Amino acid sequence: METRNIGDSLNSELITRNSQSETMTQFEAARSGNITPEMKQVAAAEGIFAEELRAQIAAGRVVIPANHNHANLQPIGIGTGLRVKVNANLGTSEVEPDAEGAKKRLMMALEAKADTVMDLSTAGGLDDIRRALIGACPAPFGTVPIYQAAVAALKQHGDIASMTEDDLFEVIARQAEDGVDFITVHCGVNRESVRQLESAQRLCGVVSRGGAFTICWMRANQRENPLFESFDRLLEIAREHDVTLSLGDGLRPGALADGTDRPQVTETIILGELAERCRAAGVQVMIEGPGHLPLDQVAANVRLQKSICQDAPFYVLGPIVTDIAPGYDHITSAIGGAVAAMAGADFLCYVTPAEHLGLPNAEEVREGVMAARIAAHAADVVRLGEKARAWDNEMARARNALDWQRQFELAIDPEKARRGFRPAPEKTADPGGCSMCGGYCVFSLLQGEEAASGRQAK
Amino acid sequence: METRNIGDSLNSELITRNSQSETMTQFEAARSGNITPEMKQVAAAEGIFAEELRAQIAAGRVVIPANHNHANLQPIGIGTGLRVKVNANLGTSEVEPDAEGAKKRLMMALEAKADTVMDLSTAGGLDDIRRALIGACPAPFGTVPIYQAAVAALKQHGDIASMTEDDLFEVIARQAEDGVDFITVHCGVNRESVRQLESAQRLCGVVSRGGAFTICWMRANQRENPLFESFDRLLEIAREHDVTLSLGDGLRPGALADGTDRPQVTETIILGELAERCRAAGVQVMIEGPGHLPLDQVAANVRLQKSICQDAPFYVLGPIVTDIAPGYDHITSAIGGAVAAMAGADFLCYVTPAEHLGLPNAEEVREGVMAARIAAHAADVVRLGEKARAWDNEMARARNALDWQRQFELAIDPEKARRGFRPAPEKTADPGGCSMCGGYCVFSLLQGEEAASGRQAK
Repeated sequence: METRNIGDSLNSELITRNSQSETMTQFEAARSGNITPEMKQVAAAEGIFAEELRAQIAAGRVVIPANHNHANLQPIGIGTGLRVKVNANLGTSEVEPDAEGAKKRLMMALEAKADTVMDLSTAGGLDDIRRALIGACPAPFGTVPIYQAAVAALKQHGDIASMTEDDLFEVIARQAEDGVDFITVHCGVNRESVRQLESAQRLCGVVSRGGAFTICWMRANQRENPLFESFDRLLEIAREHDVTLSLGDGLRPGALADGTDRPQVTETIILGELAERCRAAGVQVMIEGPGHLPLDQVAANVRLQKSICQDAPFYVLGPIVTDIAPGYDHITSAIGGAVAAMAGADFLCYVTPAEHLGLPNAEEVREGVMAARIAAHAADVVRLGEKARAWDNEMARARNALDWQRQFELAIDPEKARRGFRPAPEKTADPGGCSMCGGYCVFSLLQGEEAASGRQAK
Repeated sequence: METRNIGDSLNSELITRNSQSETMTQFEAARSGNITPEMKQVAAAEGIFAEELRAQIAAGRVVIPANHNHANLQPIGIGTGLRVKVNANLGTSEVEPDAEGAKKRLMMALEAKADTVMDLSTAGGLDDIRRALIGACPAPFGTVPIYQAAVAALKQHGDIASMTEDDLFEVIARQAEDGVDFITVHCGVNRESVRQLESAQRLCGVVSRGGAFTICWMRANQRENPLFESFDRLLEIAREHDVTLSLGDGLRPGALADGTDRPQVTETIILGELAERCRAAGVQVMIEGPGHLPLDQVAANVRLQKSICQDAPFYVLGPIVTDIAPGYDHITSAIGGAVAAMAGADFLCYVTPAEHLGLPNAEEVREGVMAARIAAHAADVVRLGEKARAWDNEMARARNALDWQRQFELAIDPEKARRGFRPAPEKTADPGGCSMCGGYCVFSLLQGEEAASGRQAK
């Protein structure tokens, strides 16, 4: 039994993980009518009743990724009725195998207020790196276990095909024991969906790395995907540690032209079936989605997923709404992410400006998180109404009062707002005010003395 | 009569402005069944039949802002069935009154492929600055004439109220003679809409500078807005030179909380009436719109404007979909702009990262244009289908082939894509490829030899 100081102004009491939440999953607890410490904390942070949250979890519409073994976790909820959450991917790669860079990006992601992080490391000592990152990460922590299993097979035998089913499940079990809160598993890449892929005229084939590993393995071994075939084995590990399964979309479109095609939708249908099996086994589940989509297909994809997967939380990567903007894909995905979240997507995986160009550096991690948070908040304003909009209204009041310090404090990125501010010089009509309109500031022009007296800081 | 080399691959023939288009407006010519040289050029650039374009202009659904006196103009069309266009605002200000900075920003805007520019200068010798900018600008050129008239009144008499109706119309006539292609005129700010403003509980009052000037003037003089009261005088000048009237939204919301309220919608209704009068007078007209709006109000606003203003082209500023992101308003407005344009908005005014913080520098002008162009293209993909999507498809093919040079060429910002690319070092499994996945590249994994042979450049 452990105690933790949450440090949240909404809930500063000490939260105690009780024995119940160490043997049951959040889903099982909710189904039994029990409100766990994690539910209490999430409900307080979201400003809803714990009983309301419990009911949503029991219905499978909300997950709280909270592995029993993630000691320093500050849990968050993902799903219907809650703020839209943002994930930041990071980790080591062949190009930068040392853990230090990954840790720097983790710190940057947390500083920029990513709600969760995923470790996608593929180089260096993967177990050590993961344990170090989890230890430094109070946010829910995710992985894609097939990366570690596939990389090990490639290193030892030179090909992915040599990975055995046991190799894969051992990695999953090890990661679960380490406290990983959610894992992406591409269980919907199976003979049926791959058959659809093979007859589809895609421009970009498969762009999910886990999906590609899986298909390589299936083709070489002439076997069904073990994550599909032995799904019960996966459920057992997930239930034991309360690892939330994030059913990956290995066949997600990687180009507008490939959006909402037969392989993609076939996979979604398979994931809908598997989500039902998760619930029957007491396991928390969410579903992953595209990817690259034309803007008019975004809302349709969300409705499709919600309907087929019985309102399981929806985790989207992007969607990127045009293929032509490498260097600006944090923007193309902020457009798609805002529209997706407004339509019901619950969880946005960030996309950085480095997408399609290389591994992001720490500053690009920050930009990616900020763009995704903007998209999430633009949707929250619609989903949650006044509760989310209070922040916008406070900013609007500070603008109207020309209270610059307050505007900086309220900014989603106070540091960037402060740095970007360029006050008008002393000789101008509105010295210290913003330089955009100089002396012709609308707030000064019309409100006159009233506005002037409201100014608090330069 | 003049001849110009268009330099467009779609239309490299010499275009001759004939005497007809020097006495009629594009709208009058279209109504008379005449296809002008400008229509031919726009139709060729858009890949549509000139007769189809003529019909859209005659119906008031498309404008070609093309002042008879703008000698070096390369005309573009704005409206139904055409690519969504992007405008960049620039000019001098009290803080930077010299023309050089404005000219630098003009060059940057054109280099970044803004479709039009607007000169919002408020400092320095405004006539000289405008003439210099027009002379250097083949893109349609817009202004907000009340800025010059109000600034002159402030300089000479210390208050805006001293501006006379004649002062204002003289400025408009002078700018029209200089070749300004479109002007923002806040004709919908009148006693009726201001009465609605005064009873509305707005957080940010009036955020349009032209709107604020107008209301100051109306209050001080206890008179109706001359641009509304003497609208016929405005029509006469506009018709003579074929200046497209961009009916400004002086009461546009400047905060989410002020979106779609009584003053805003009252003004739109007034603009709908005035648009009808423009058409009756043979004058080209478009309508301006918000501003700051919650994401779920964006499409509704576009439908409202299109319906009330009989499908006049819609020119939006943003919409900015959350107030909390100073430093990132090119992103908040790209989200709103894409959704607005998908719903039918035809023309996006860029918003730079400096919005709400100060006057943008040249690099921020570039970022603003790029974000707006991304939003426009994301909508074009939906509005124009394959015609717009061909670009995305080419990029997808280049990605699949790992053809980096081709990806850079196709990028909306080739320079940024090239700069952002970070090839994997020689010692890695995919030297020269992108560093994101190192040797675990999905395109290499699955396509193997096929993809490898398709690689053309590092």
